[in-house]
Amino acid sequence: MSHYITRLHQSIRHKGTPALVGLDPRFELLPQSIVESARKRTTDERTIVATAFEEFCFRLIDVVRDLVPAVKPQAAFFEQLGASGSQVLARVIRRARDAGLIVICDVKRSDIGSTAEAYARGYLAGADPDAAGWAADAITVNPYLGSDALQPFVQVAVERGAGLYILIRTSNPGAGLFQDLKSDSLPLYRHVARIVEELAAETCDQTKFGAVGGVVGATYPHELAELRNAMPHTSLLVPGYGNQGASAKDVAAAFSADGLGALINSSRAINFAYLREPFKSQYRPHEWEQAVEDATAQMIDELAENTPAGKLR
Amino acid sequence: MSHYITRLHQSIRHKGTPALVGLDPRFELLPQSIVESARKRTTDERTIVATAFEEFCFRLIDVVRDLVPAVKPQAAFFEQLGASGSQVLARVIRRARDAGLIVICDVKRSDIGSTAEAYARGYLAGADPDAAGWAADAITVNPYLGSDALQPFVQVAVERGAGLYILIRTSNPGAGLFQDLKSDSLPLYRHVARIVEELAAETCDQTKFGAVGGVVGATYPHELAELRNAMPHTSLLVPGYGNQGASAKDVAAAFSADGLGALINSSRAINFAYLREPFKSQYRPHEWEQAVEDATAQMIDELAENTPAGKLR
Repeated sequence: MSHYITRLHQSIRHKGTPALVGLDPRFELLPQSIVESARKRTTDERTIVATAFEEFCFRLIDVVRDLVPAVKPQAAFFEQLGASGSQVLARVIRRARDAGLIVICDVKRSDIGSTAEAYARGYLAGADPDAAGWAADAITVNPYLGSDALQPFVQVAVERGAGLYILIRTSNPGAGLFQDLKSDSLPLYRHVARIVEELAAETCDQTKFGAVGGVVGATYPHELAELRNAMPHTSLLVPGYGNQGASAKDVAAAFSADGLGALINSSRAINFAYLREPFKSQYRPHEWEQAVEDATAQMIDELAENTPAGKLR
Repeated sequence: MSHYITRLHQSIRHKGTPALVGLDPRFELLPQSIVESARKRTTDERTIVATAFEEFCFRLIDVVRDLVPAVKPQAAFFEQLGASGSQVLARVIRRARDAGLIVICDVKRSDIGSTAEAYARGYLAGADPDAAGWAADAITVNPYLGSDALQPFVQVAVERGAGLYILIRTSNPGAGLFQDLKSDSLPLYRHVARIVEELAAETCDQTKFGAVGGVVGATYPHELAELRNAMPHTSLLVPGYGNQGASAKDVAAAFSADGLGALINSSRAINFAYLREPFKSQYRPHEWEQAVEDATAQMIDELAENTPAGKLR
């Protein structure tokens, strides 16, 4: 059974970058050519959207498969379509696995006891894509219910060579409402971080990182640096780069000195690069895949130039 | 557009009880007759489980439809099966709606901005079952990300006459790890409760309860009483009755004086009543539906005798 971090680091070193591409299909932003192609195949409105999402994500995967180590499908956009969206999510995950990509399914699940275990068994395929209905290598998890509610996720992850990213500090503007509440002179997110770091230390591979990691938003660079120092065994998933406003310099502190320890996610700024400059002027809408390729390459370069990830090249 | 609470209270008054039956299919606990019937229809192992879950839940719904106002499918058990499980969940929700039941889908979702909105649009059908892929009247939501992350759920709920139950104090033994952390002399769950009560007050129908409610575990009777007093506009969903150990007396404080203000959930103790005494001695496994009916009637009686809900009869 290969450990999640072993597989992740292999993929990061192979591609030479910690860039993580989110798969966030949004119907109103899809290239017209994708929508038209879906309309030719069916007339039912929900099936048109599902068909368009599948084609869009498949083609996105084909563009980025040789560039980045991992992709992060956002479950919400698929689930928005009902059960047909869930089927597309399963196929998109499978397609990405088949393309040799690590797949982190962004589900932010949380529940207790055997219910938490049911989620874990449904999503955490880990090393063997056939082990679960949704064949993810790793998922995101919400910690509000406490560590007994995290434990079933951890157990299944260890058993299957899968990974977890537990929300610590989220990237939204109002993240601090509860996460910054101070108790015993430390904010809530530091209390969560302490538990995550314990779980990470307990689930390490031969390198120093654990199968349990954490989510820390790039939009809070100070907290990101603080948490990298406080959590030496915790692999970080860092959202908020690009469209949410964070730069490569903002995420530099997320890495350990060797350039490992973090994945930096960009979703909308890559998925819909054809809608923004400079790509909007360079490419026509049906050339959206070239915009995706350029935007991904640009992100990879920015991370290499401004963070320890440059050492991975 | 009928308000969620208006529909919920109508259903509670009509059935004369606040008993909420969880739909928690667990393959290892299913009556043998259900599993055998599924095996006759297909040979694929995952499809057998999905087929068995559907038949079990459909028959559960038929037993309780005239007894209780609402059911609560637990999404995790369906999602555990992959996309075929999600299809079954959609059909189960629809079946319960068609049976005149209020459906609270226990998904415990959380995300930010337009991603949170995607979940809300996917699950919160509200007054019109055709408005969403999963036709729920209400869902459960996790508050860790803060109130800007709750806002899209609230907006869609108000727009569609749907309801939300935000996790405040969960029923698991380790719930207090983060939820009890004190900040400004109040535990985290009270800070969450303050936000939930504000949202409840902003989303009231002509009675005093809001479309936004809260989840408070019956396994913490002291906190339940404290929160009922602190949250006059908040309709409570109370898990932990039955199998998790809480009694009718433990949940009495969840209600307002008129017997409204709370739904008391029991899942396993009703779903699999045929496996426990006294029903195990009274009925054979294939008579499991009679055990479900008796266990539901027993819960309804216990709540009527020991809580203000007796006034609903």
